[in-house]
Amino acid sequence: MRLTLIAAQSVDGFITRHDEPGTAFASPADQAHFRRALTHFDCSVFGATTYRVARDQIRAGLSHGRRRVVLTRQPAAYASDAVPGALEFTDDAPEAIIDRLRQLGHREGALLGGAEIHDLFLHARLVDELWLTIEPRIFGAGTPLVRKRVDLSLELLEADRLDDSDSLLVKYRVRRPAG
Amino acid sequence: MRLTLIAAQSVDGFITRHDEPGTAFASPADQAHFRRALTHFDCSVFGATTYRVARDQIRAGLSHGRRRVVLTRQPAAYASDAVPGALEFTDDAPEAIIDRLRQLGHREGALLGGAEIHDLFLHARLVDELWLTIEPRIFGAGTPLVRKRVDLSLELLEADRLDDSDSLLVKYRVRRPAG
Repeated sequence: MRLTLIAAQSVDGFITRHDEPGTAFASPADQAHFRRALTHFDCSVFGATTYRVARDQIRAGLSHGRRRVVLTRQPAAYASDAVPGALEFTDDAPEAIIDRLRQLGHREGALLGGAEIHDLFLHARLVDELWLTIEPRIFGAGTPLVRKRVDLSLELLEADRLDDSDSLLVKYRVRRPAG
Repeated sequence: MRLTLIAAQSVDGFITRHDEPGTAFASPADQAHFRRALTHFDCSVFGATTYRVARDQIRAGLSHGRRRVVLTRQPAAYASDAVPGALEFTDDAPEAIIDRLRQLGHREGALLGGAEIHDLFLHARLVDELWLTIEPRIFGAGTPLVRKRVDLSLELLEADRLDDSDSLLVKYRVRRPAG
């Protein structure tokens, strides 16, 4: 299964505007792109913070064709929200989550944040591609794309303006370390 | 006079790789771009740290057509390095530096870092454009493009792959705040 990290960020690498939770800063062009992009994936993985911020929207859009896996330290706390096959909560390790999705026959997974989830999966070398919307903003502060020191080399696949806007969609493949 | 901030950064907005000083992480494509880009400018402004890191290279390339202004808290400490009209050291405020360059007839200024210099000139609203090379790297730590919280909106002018490499050159114009 291929795992693609999808995020919108400022030019200087923040996925939130200062302390404002969520992605209210993201442009209409990014929101349209995000909805289109998600149709490409048969499953997604994200963290409990992302779930809480977008809970109503997520629950309204559940479908059995697209499994959503929420990584949380307290899966039991979300037991009443769970919908088997469509919305699942787990504290499994990243490798175990990806293995299970692969065994269930999934082929294309979207990793939808936030920063801690990015860190976990990037450090475990489980991310194959990054699709980043670079919004025409500079914030100087906020939640960073990744929190932990890392040293990743990428291959630039595409760089395209989104719908004649000032937002730029860049797609990268993560290069495997030599040796 | 138009002032253009020029920098190379990782995808996640760092202008150094972790604690490594300078821009050794920058690609050959960015280095070639940077040399070409500088010919477009008739003056440049940068900080003392940038000067110390690139001192030999800067002093070897001095020319009277291109004034270089180093912003430092201790201009007297660099008196023996100064070359009037070509290499100057000052503790003037950003506005005063730009006013003086304009009065001297300069038309195109390059702002060459580092982060503190970016902060000073961005907060003073003196930067007209940003030309950023986005290197295909993720660092998670390092010197950020800007250190202080800010909220700037930009207009995307161009986004082009540099010389068939994985490096992306993006050019932005800073939008003036409404009102």
